Amino acid sequence: MLAERNIIDQSEAVLIIEGLNEIREEMLDGSFPFDLSFEDIHMNIEKRLIEKVGVVGGKLHTGRSRNDQVALDMHLYMLEEGKSIMSGLEGLQRTILNLAERYKGFLIPGYTHMQRAQPLLFSHHLLTYFWMLQRDRQRLHGALKCADLMPLGAGALAGTGFPLDREKVAEELGFSALYENSIDAVSDRDYILEFLSFASILIMHLSRFSEELITWSTAEFGFIELDDAYTTGSSMMPQKKNPDVAELVRGKSGRIYGALFALLTVMKGLPLAYNKDMQEDKEGFFNTVDTLKIMLPLFAEMLETMSVNRVRMEAAVDDDYLCATDLADYLVRRQVTFRDAHHIVGQIIAYCREKNLRLRELDDKTRSQFHPSLADNIDALLDPIKVIEARKSRGGTAPEAVNRQFELAREIFNNKL
Amino acid sequence: MLAERNIIDQSEAVLIIEGLNEIREEMLDGSFPFDLSFEDIHMNIEKRLIEKVGVVGGKLHTGRSRNDQVALDMHLYMLEEGKSIMSGLEGLQRTILNLAERYKGFLIPGYTHMQRAQPLLFSHHLLTYFWMLQRDRQRLHGALKCADLMPLGAGALAGTGFPLDREKVAEELGFSALYENSIDAVSDRDYILEFLSFASILIMHLSRFSEELITWSTAEFGFIELDDAYTTGSSMMPQKKNPDVAELVRGKSGRIYGALFALLTVMKGLPLAYNKDMQEDKEGFFNTVDTLKIMLPLFAEMLETMSVNRVRMEAAVDDDYLCATDLADYLVRRQVTFRDAHHIVGQIIAYCREKNLRLRELDDKTRSQFHPSLADNIDALLDPIKVIEARKSRGGTAPEAVNRQFELAREIFNNKL
Amino acid sequence: MLAERNIIDQSEAVLIIEGLNEIREEMLDGSFPFDLSFEDIHMNIEKRLIEKVGVVGGKLHTGRSRNDQVALDMHLYMLEEGKSIMSGLEGLQRTILNLAERYKGFLIPGYTHMQRAQPLLFSHHLLTYFWMLQRDRQRLHGALKCADLMPLGAGALAGTGFPLDREKVAEELGFSALYENSIDAVSDRDYILEFLSFASILIMHLSRFSEELITWSTAEFGFIELDDAYTTGSSMMPQKKNPDVAELVRGKSGRIYGALFALLTVMKGLPLAYNKDMQEDKEGFFNTVDTLKIMLPLFAEMLETMSVNRVRMEAAVDDDYLCATDLADYLVRRQVTFRDAHHIVGQIIAYCREKNLRLRELDDKTRSQFHPSLADNIDALLDPIKVIEARKSRGGTAPEAVNRQFELAREIFNNKL
Amino acid sequence: MLAERNIIDQSEAVLIIEGLNEIREEMLDGSFPFDLSFEDIHMNIEKRLIEKVGVVGGKLHTGRSRNDQVALDMHLYMLEEGKSIMSGLEGLQRTILNLAERYKGFLIPGYTHMQRAQPLLFSHHLLTYFWMLQRDRQRLHGALKCADLMPLGAGALAGTGFPLDREKVAEELGFSALYENSIDAVSDRDYILEFLSFASILIMHLSRFSEELITWSTAEFGFIELDDAYTTGSSMMPQKKNPDVAELVRGKSGRIYGALFALLTVMKGLPLAYNKDMQEDKEGFFNTVDTLKIMLPLFAEMLETMSVNRVRMEAAVDDDYLCATDLADYLVRRQVTFRDAHHIVGQIIAYCREKNLRLRELDDKTRSQFHPSLADNIDALLDPIKVIEARKSRGGTAPEAVNRQFELAREIFNNKL
Repeated sequence: MLAERNIIDQSEAVLIIEGLNEIREEMLDGSFPFDLSFEDIHMNIEKRLIEKVGVVGGKLHTGRSRNDQVALDMHLYMLEEGKSIMSGLEGLQRTILNLAERYKGFLIPGYTHMQRAQPLLFSHHLLTYFWMLQRDRQRLHGALKCADLMPLGAGALAGTGFPLDREKVAEELGFSALYENSIDAVSDRDYILEFLSFASILIMHLSRFSEELITWSTAEFGFIELDDAYTTGSSMMPQKKNPDVAELVRGKSGRIYGALFALLTVMKGLPLAYNKDMQEDKEGFFNTVDTLKIMLPLFAEMLETMSVNRVRMEAAVDDDYLCATDLADYLVRRQVTFRDAHHIVGQIIAYCREKNLRLRELDDKTRSQFHPSLADNIDALLDPIKVIEARKSRGGTAPEAVNRQFELAREIFNNKL
Repeated sequence: MLAERNIIDQSEAVLIIEGLNEIREEMLDGSFPFDLSFEDIHMNIEKRLIEKVGVVGGKLHTGRSRNDQVALDMHLYMLEEGKSIMSGLEGLQRTILNLAERYKGFLIPGYTHMQRAQPLLFSHHLLTYFWMLQRDRQRLHGALKCADLMPLGAGALAGTGFPLDREKVAEELGFSALYENSIDAVSDRDYILEFLSFASILIMHLSRFSEELITWSTAEFGFIELDDAYTTGSSMMPQKKNPDVAELVRGKSGRIYGALFALLTVMKGLPLAYNKDMQEDKEGFFNTVDTLKIMLPLFAEMLETMSVNRVRMEAAVDDDYLCATDLADYLVRRQVTFRDAHHIVGQIIAYCREKNLRLRELDDKTRSQFHPSLADNIDALLDPIKVIEARKSRGGTAPEAVNRQFELAREIFNNKL
Repeated sequence: MLAERNIIDQSEAVLIIEGLNEIREEMLDGSFPFDLSFEDIHMNIEKRLIEKVGVVGGKLHTGRSRNDQVALDMHLYMLEEGKSIMSGLEGLQRTILNLAERYKGFLIPGYTHMQRAQPLLFSHHLLTYFWMLQRDRQRLHGALKCADLMPLGAGALAGTGFPLDREKVAEELGFSALYENSIDAVSDRDYILEFLSFASILIMHLSRFSEELITWSTAEFGFIELDDAYTTGSSMMPQKKNPDVAELVRGKSGRIYGALFALLTVMKGLPLAYNKDMQEDKEGFFNTVDTLKIMLPLFAEMLETMSVNRVRMEAAVDDDYLCATDLADYLVRRQVTFRDAHHIVGQIIAYCREKNLRLRELDDKTRSQFHPSLADNIDALLDPIKVIEARKSRGGTAPEAVNRQFELAREIFNNKL
Repeated sequence: MLAERNIIDQSEAVLIIEGLNEIREEMLDGSFPFDLSFEDIHMNIEKRLIEKVGVVGGKLHTGRSRNDQVALDMHLYMLEEGKSIMSGLEGLQRTILNLAERYKGFLIPGYTHMQRAQPLLFSHHLLTYFWMLQRDRQRLHGALKCADLMPLGAGALAGTGFPLDREKVAEELGFSALYENSIDAVSDRDYILEFLSFASILIMHLSRFSEELITWSTAEFGFIELDDAYTTGSSMMPQKKNPDVAELVRGKSGRIYGALFALLTVMKGLPLAYNKDMQEDKEGFFNTVDTLKIMLPLFAEMLETMSVNRVRMEAAVDDDYLCATDLADYLVRRQVTFRDAHHIVGQIIAYCREKNLRLRELDDKTRSQFHPSLADNIDALLDPIKVIEARKSRGGTAPEAVNRQFELAREIFNNKL
């Protein structure tokens, strides 16, 4: 570009490019002589280039400053790593879909406040995380768009007097847009903050999933057993399967929230343009990227390999008090108002608790004392499977509603949404 | 919808709708009898409806639970308030554009590390904030999209057995999509977190602008004077104009960051579906919305009414050491390599500092001792205006490059981007 | 003091004091005419004083500025409220001691990684929180000491030219020290930050306790049942006891952490002395104080009234794999090295798991195949009570070690530590 | 201790101690063969010990578990590093005292809201930081006290069945207290959180000081010049002295706040006792320790070597509007009430501003029109030095009040407070 714009000679450009190609080879085969006394990678390359092609190498950075160069590196890094995190997210979504397919027909209690509330298809529960991750992907997409701005040409802060072709540079480097203001180009850390916000919400999601896995793995719940590869025991207590990976993922919420807060703190109240404080943007960002890259596939593998104890799960569902809502809905259909229906069902359950009975153990006559409509056969209302099958409106836990989610998920992947 | 789906009778629907219309009137004219002993707005309305239309009022909430109702309220609130914040952002951008137009031709030193670095057009500096706010608008757009999901029909967590027409409800309420998973609908707080992330980055931007306004208002800088309406003095020291509004905006970064971290903390490690902890989503969110709604127009007015001291600004620019980069670039064009050029200019400036001279006070001969090319007339290189005019590549501070920013800004507003 | 130092006349002092006494009465009986057009409480009092005693009332604030007055209010507020929080903490500690006494002899599994690890006395588990709260009290003590500095006399920032007797003022207001530097007196927010740090660690402790209560209240654990007053059900599902108070306490960690980070953000990078940003110190601080004052007694009552299901707890303990450590320790006493002992016990448990046996179901012969010493009668090693009784070194879970904790606790209260 | 308590034989103890001594030598001379396949330092030492002394080496960890061992390491680390940070704090305080001595008699404007408010002794301004650091030292002291609890003997969580002499171990390791509850010993992270709270407040203080240094270093203020060793320029713009160290310190507030928030997040809602999440306590803690250890002496050197431009500072003070407060106080002494005096002075300054006059340029007659008492010679009131000398009440900026601060500071160091 420098040569095309006559900023340097064509012959100089050829020399420089040849030199850079050689340097790339050296880096690939590990022979490049890094020298820490030269401040950074840019200076090391320039120095090596001069060794190779002579003083003309000193023209490499014409029209650039360290500020826009470093900004470029950070943008390229994020765009590159963002892709791999995006594919980690997609992989985890696929795993969840696979599990939801695999465990079709398994029942689990739905909890609110950690108290059993209503019966669910286990698949429906799992798919919740699919949708959470889908929003995470959209947020990552937004953060990557925010990083997709080419900064070179901003100089130290005011732009450059050289007639650079910024559009061409952007295109060659794979950017779809460029900074329209040179000060912005060197002062902006929005893309990192937006990435860290995305990462914080994502790790929050995974901390919730981890909490569930840890709870389900307790002796008391016993709904799942994580594979040995994702737990540790002690040599002495091999029966103990500490869900280390899930705990670590939950714990990583601290590190990632901390990285977001750290950078928000750094940027607070900084005047334009560049201030040295901003150098603190790196460590938390790199660490977050590395964490996500490792964690997403690991989490998927942990899910893939866990075993599910259908017997324990369904024993927990077999508590017909979980059908209270459906009993009330039944009364509503018989013209009882919503509030009265709730009240009547409340009384029945209180009665059963006192007598230590399940709902299905009440005979017709007893039931009819609470409301005449209850004299009818209501077995179907007290069967978790039937109760689940009834919730077939869009988004519900009925098999047909869950199937709709599978279709939508497939559509998302087919259309790369 | 309940009547269309034969969940209630048409006549019941008519009664309920008439009752609700009357209630709306009562709310508008202030005669609605709120009763705190009824837990929330939904219960108050239902009770009043029953008073008006009889027991049929109890059918109002058929197919709903408190969980999906409250979720709906929060979504509607955010979509509504989001619009007004969006227009506050746009208003502030327009103010910045106006200022940038008004102060065309004013020069200001560009700073890095708070040290004067290169001369800038003041308009160019101001426009930096235009672009920062443009990204904020895109983030708000993303957050609103994330909130644009209709939750009704999710029931407590498992969906509903009533054949609700969720699509129709979504359409009538102005949503363009709905939650595809009932558990997700009641467990999700992503939209609030994404909003608070947007708000945190925005307030960070405004804290930077505020810091600049505060610094520029000092006696030592003296670049601007804020209007009395946005400062306070004391009765005793009327010369003191404390930039209270700018300081408060800077200080609000604490409150808004705090709200984001509060909710991230709350959500960390919570199992599905609803947990009471999540009630803590409200105060920080409402407070942030209120803060932004007040602050954005206030900030715009403060900018609009400030006076700019061109003399002080340009006196600060009149330091020809700020032209060092251009002198080096000149040498580069004379075939000196980038590094050598930097080195030579460094020597000249060191020489001037020692002799306490300005660059333009050096005569040809002295200059030529540093490099023969410097014997030529280089006055243009040492004139801040010329130096600014030279930076005309896209995004630079030259008037023509700044004009390009104005055009892009106009395009953005015309095309509602 | 002003009169003693001859800054005002004795007769003026008498008038002012009489006026202030009347104003106090007005405030107590609610007749004081607050006027929002006067900026704050100080101005309202001064204005009322002038109405009562004439222009001499204007001498009330001689030698003061708003900056040191507001600082004084905040210090007094914290010292006052700090006492009541201290007593809330002590009350909660006493409740924990009571419970630990009440449930002497109850066993509970000790968990690590939420996996059952070793049997514990339930009292020992509860007392952990006693010690955590004891450290909280020490931290609160430190924060109150940090607030125990009298700021009056600092003026706006430079001190005052009036010969104030700051020591006397400090003494009369109940301070034991005063700020030795006037700038510090008006710039300092350490005491609030130290208080919020204390509060954050405290709420973290209570979030852990809450998490345990919530988990123990699940149908799956069933270790405790919280009293109805501290849970909510629905009219329809009276069996559901949502542990709302525990969840809210856990959720408050967000609000309190947020308040700490808000103020740390506000203070970051502020130059001396007062800046308006610092006005943002109030809301999060007041909110935290109010939260703690309500929450501490509420939490204590919730604990006091919960019922404990000894049968469920001890059924969970009756898993003799929890005795693995003691079996290994037994071998160590028989001259097996620590590592070998662990290895041997691991093999035994693996064997039992495979055969689906409990440890105590193994006969002598089988046991002796793993190690000759195991041929002996080892029943005592496999009985949770015996295992507990063995851990009698200081701080252990044996009854006698737990008794030592009771004694220490009593000592702490007796000596007001 | 194990031998004294007859847990192992005396001869075994001798062997183990000899082996450990050899291992220490190996570590000191770098010959110790670390092997990453052994999980941690404890396992490496044990393995090496067994190589040296045979199977008896396996008795080294009798009565310990990894949980209490790692807890011990962390406590020892903090106590050790805490000492060195304490001495860094003291060193920085001494530097501030030195500077305050060195610049006795220098004047600087005191600012509120970054607006010049009243004249100060530069020493008085500097000493503010002395007192802030003194509180930091007290907080560090508190955090170290919180860490001064010996955890060994807690076992995995329940204590140990071996008759360990925990008091003796505590004493030999230099602890003054021990954990009284074994669960607490392995669950507690308060000491790290309290340390990170201390560190957050400290870095907030230093961020304020840094902000001032950066502002004072601008061309516009020009109050100080930082030594080259603590700034960077570019080869090209040697006049530019970017205050990198001060900026980095200010920026480190992000990293340290982030570490505190990270660990608070990790600990939120974790049940007792150990959970793997807690492993995330290390990185932020170590990083904070390292940062403080480097930063405190560096900051002190930066201060020590900066040069102060008395001329620029005192030119800024030479603005007699800064004497407004004293003029009002003068009127108060002449029986004008506080409010009226403020009002009168406000009118005078407004008059001067309009006429573009300094206060001291007003003649007697003009002054007397505002108030008769102003006809007298008031030159002393308008001289910054006199104004400063007047503020001699304790904590004020008068030389004698500042001297009192020096004395107190000396007392603090002499008595090691």
